[in-house]
Amino acid sequence: MMWEACVQVMLKPGVLDPQGETVGKALRTLGYDEVQTVRVGKVLKIKVEGADQAAVAARVEEMCRRLLANPVIEQYSFQLVKESEG
Amino acid sequence: MMWEACVQVMLKPGVLDPQGETVGKALRTLGYDEVQTVRVGKVLKIKVEGADQAAVAARVEEMCRRLLANPVIEQYSFQLVKESEG
Repeated sequence: MMWEACVQVMLKPGVLDPQGETVGKALRTLGYDEVQTVRVGKVLKIKVEGADQAAVAARVEEMCRRLLANPVIEQYSFQLVKESEG
Repeated sequence: MMWEACVQVMLKPGVLDPQGETVGKALRTLGYDEVQTVRVGKVLKIKVEGADQAAVAARVEEMCRRLLANPVIEQYSFQLVKESEG
């Protein structure tokens, strides 16, 4: 069975995000004065083969911990969606 | 009222994603052979002030079009969530 894991990796709250600040400044310069704060992160769409949802979730969790996020400054979350066959 | 727009910007299907391919290769090297494909994108969490959901959504849509995504190679989507006051 095919699954798609949609992983979000964001900087932890309190970690400075200069990229987000720059985007926020750019938006306000363009006239979007209603913008308060912007935080920028990564999203990874991972297609994985697996029989069992719980087992796939455990593997994706491990991928996040070992490779996809830096646990010192980043936090992650993910959703797992079953893909239609073929 | 405060809103949080969660904007996802991904490369369009068919646009080569070397970053995603590199992550996929790294995951398989680490032993995650079930990984088929990986696509990497950006996520932006934007806090905006606004009275009306439809008006805020229209403004965020415009931000995506004008600044946040490159319409030649990227596609975007977003969700708008009302923040609790204070």
